[in-house]
Amino acid sequence: MDATTKINIPESPHERIVIVGGGFGGLQLARKLSRDDYQVVLIDKNNYHQFQPLFYQVAMAGLEPSSIVFPFRKLFQGKKNIYIRVTEVVSVEPDKKTVQTPLGFCNYDHLIIATGADTNYFGNENIEKYALPMKSVAEALYLRNNILDDYEDALTTPDYEPRQELVDIVIVGGGPTGVELAGSLAEMKKHVLPKDYPELNIEEEVDIYLVQAGGCVLKGFSDDSSAKALRYLEELGVKVLLNSRVTDFDGHHVLLKDGSSIPSQKVIWAAGVKGSPVPGLPATSITYGNRLAVDRFHRVKETEDVYAIGDVAYMEEPGWQKGHPQVAQVAIQNGANLARNFRNRIREKDLIPFAYNDKGSMATVGRGRAVVDIPKPKFQFGGFLAWLLWLVVHLFAILGTRNKLFVFINWVINYINYDQSLRLIIKPKIK
Amino acid sequence: MDATTKINIPESPHERIVIVGGGFGGLQLARKLSRDDYQVVLIDKNNYHQFQPLFYQVAMAGLEPSSIVFPFRKLFQGKKNIYIRVTEVVSVEPDKKTVQTPLGFCNYDHLIIATGADTNYFGNENIEKYALPMKSVAEALYLRNNILDDYEDALTTPDYEPRQELVDIVIVGGGPTGVELAGSLAEMKKHVLPKDYPELNIEEEVDIYLVQAGGCVLKGFSDDSSAKALRYLEELGVKVLLNSRVTDFDGHHVLLKDGSSIPSQKVIWAAGVKGSPVPGLPATSITYGNRLAVDRFHRVKETEDVYAIGDVAYMEEPGWQKGHPQVAQVAIQNGANLARNFRNRIREKDLIPFAYNDKGSMATVGRGRAVVDIPKPKFQFGGFLAWLLWLVVHLFAILGTRNKLFVFINWVINYINYDQSLRLIIKPKIK
Repeated sequence: MDATTKINIPESPHERIVIVGGGFGGLQLARKLSRDDYQVVLIDKNNYHQFQPLFYQVAMAGLEPSSIVFPFRKLFQGKKNIYIRVTEVVSVEPDKKTVQTPLGFCNYDHLIIATGADTNYFGNENIEKYALPMKSVAEALYLRNNILDDYEDALTTPDYEPRQELVDIVIVGGGPTGVELAGSLAEMKKHVLPKDYPELNIEEEVDIYLVQAGGCVLKGFSDDSSAKALRYLEELGVKVLLNSRVTDFDGHHVLLKDGSSIPSQKVIWAAGVKGSPVPGLPATSITYGNRLAVDRFHRVKETEDVYAIGDVAYMEEPGWQKGHPQVAQVAIQNGANLARNFRNRIREKDLIPFAYNDKGSMATVGRGRAVVDIPKPKFQFGGFLAWLLWLVVHLFAILGTRNKLFVFINWVINYINYDQSLRLIIKPKIK
Repeated sequence: MDATTKINIPESPHERIVIVGGGFGGLQLARKLSRDDYQVVLIDKNNYHQFQPLFYQVAMAGLEPSSIVFPFRKLFQGKKNIYIRVTEVVSVEPDKKTVQTPLGFCNYDHLIIATGADTNYFGNENIEKYALPMKSVAEALYLRNNILDDYEDALTTPDYEPRQELVDIVIVGGGPTGVELAGSLAEMKKHVLPKDYPELNIEEEVDIYLVQAGGCVLKGFSDDSSAKALRYLEELGVKVLLNSRVTDFDGHHVLLKDGSSIPSQKVIWAAGVKGSPVPGLPATSITYGNRLAVDRFHRVKETEDVYAIGDVAYMEEPGWQKGHPQVAQVAIQNGANLARNFRNRIREKDLIPFAYNDKGSMATVGRGRAVVDIPKPKFQFGGFLAWLLWLVVHLFAILGTRNKLFVFINWVINYINYDQSLRLIIKPKIK
């Protein structure tokens, strides 16, 4: 296809809204518009929506990808004004009001950038080359295969030093992703690996490191929750290195800023993200963290009919002078507000400026323990009850999208016997 | 690693049995020997056993791979005399009693070749290059991704001819695999595709072809069952081409022996298998269908302490003068008999010659219909009852290896609403 081919989408009497990206924000927007007088074109690289908060479970062989990803075509069955195209937007031409894709170009009346964020390696090329990201279910699956492959290799590696490289795992970043990963790896070390690999001395040889630049984990949570999460991790045997930083990684040794090094071939990078806007938008619309500056109506600065929602957007609001956190809640609320404004537009009602309703934060540390922060009324708690709440919230979040029975049964079985059958190194054979 | 590195396996006072391949035969043998005075080394390319009779369900997005594959380490947890090595046997050196692998060499006292069979393209290089095999769960997953990708592409292919290539599917081979695939594809066409792709004219444009060289499908079954299966397929709308043959395939058009051609990019090749023995065994031990000739005690002709079981073995037995069929039952019974003989050897009892106990054959054609042949007393039946029996037999077969609850619930849900959430194009991202 070349730049002059038009992507095959039926003509419509209605205005066309093109949404780039079917994450939390894009999906919410498309759903809310599925009965309105717009033609909605949802473009995504994948044919499925990914439930990001549970990627770490896929990486840890605790859940199947199919439990946490949802095919768009199933989600939108029967919605006649929604057109799904599985492709990538290569660039935007705001003057012509088109986006370019490998399948051809696509006109829009309104364009929504909901492309989210990608891993930020802060310019360190070695780390980018060797570390493992976890920003998609495909990456999580790759990480799972990698961990399992390395334990197999460890069996036939008689020397101590090279075996250490295979069995030790370093997680960088003490946010929710890093903490949840470290917690479940520690449990895997305790409950699964000794049974699967009796030939290895798991207890003594395997170390799980969590490297965090600041003085606490779960920065942004309440002090109490941060402290609790740290204690939970240490009780599980995770070696938490606070006020530390990975300065280099050659694929075999992880160099820390104090000059020490850890032998490991697996560095999981959960230390930061940056917005991933689409090429073609004015450079001046890009701001902090490579995000698109938007006003309270989600309009991208210095453009017309272009909007941004979710992790790729940067909006200042009284009370959130440094922008909103890059979390699912913000993206979902962004999508809902923008949909409402599109509806108001048709009905010639006033547009509503976005106002973030912070419902709180939670993170789980292994099975049966979590921390929960609730902002209004200010309140925090941890332990088993927090974990139950975490479970319920996450189940309800995927309830709308899919039969949750499986995920639930899966978790229950998992919880009872610490033992899944998902430790499979499956790679679709490429011909 | 080079040919002089020894693979890392602890020394043992017992004789070492090396099993190459963890399919039905190899797995059965290893399980039956898991409490005996032998050191058993099980070598497989994958870290899991694959339940081959349900591959087609994975290809049709009806089941997750994890429902039908089982990690060896989980199957053998707590079995101290079993050592699993995930690698490939490159060659055997019968004189030195070793096998070579990329991890180093491995000595054996007894070697069992249980490497099964691979797709047979009968020397047609074009077909080998372009057709899709289905002899592993990885290939089934690849096929699934391929089918889904092509329907996505069809949406943006406005011209009729090229779109036909994307939506039509040709299955070659009218054995159980071909028949079961055709049946479930026909159901997918009827119940799933119209909902997922309302933009396509599924009913009129999509054709499922089944090409069979002989005059009936399910050759080897009773005439009655063959006829029934054919009727079921035609009722489901499958275009069954009997007495036909694919002579060439260029990736876009399938050429048949009568000179006609079908526009299709997807040819699923289920037309034949050939044994895949390990290099290094005497050429004279290889016989019909590239299989290893064995005596009634599974010993490979012209070798010592080398055995073959399952699809790769060719054994003549009174009543089976042309060898046994290459099916799971034979492999399982081979494995069990060889295990018994290894035990008898230790106890200085007589070895027992293998005798095949044919329990019958069955094949399912879509949901709710199957055919069953029972040899003693000679008896056959079809329809819904046969399908229920098929379901029960397959559930019990995986009962031993894994919690069958999931697979069962999955099937029930699937059966009721014809709609799975597994239509996901997931490829582990390769860095």
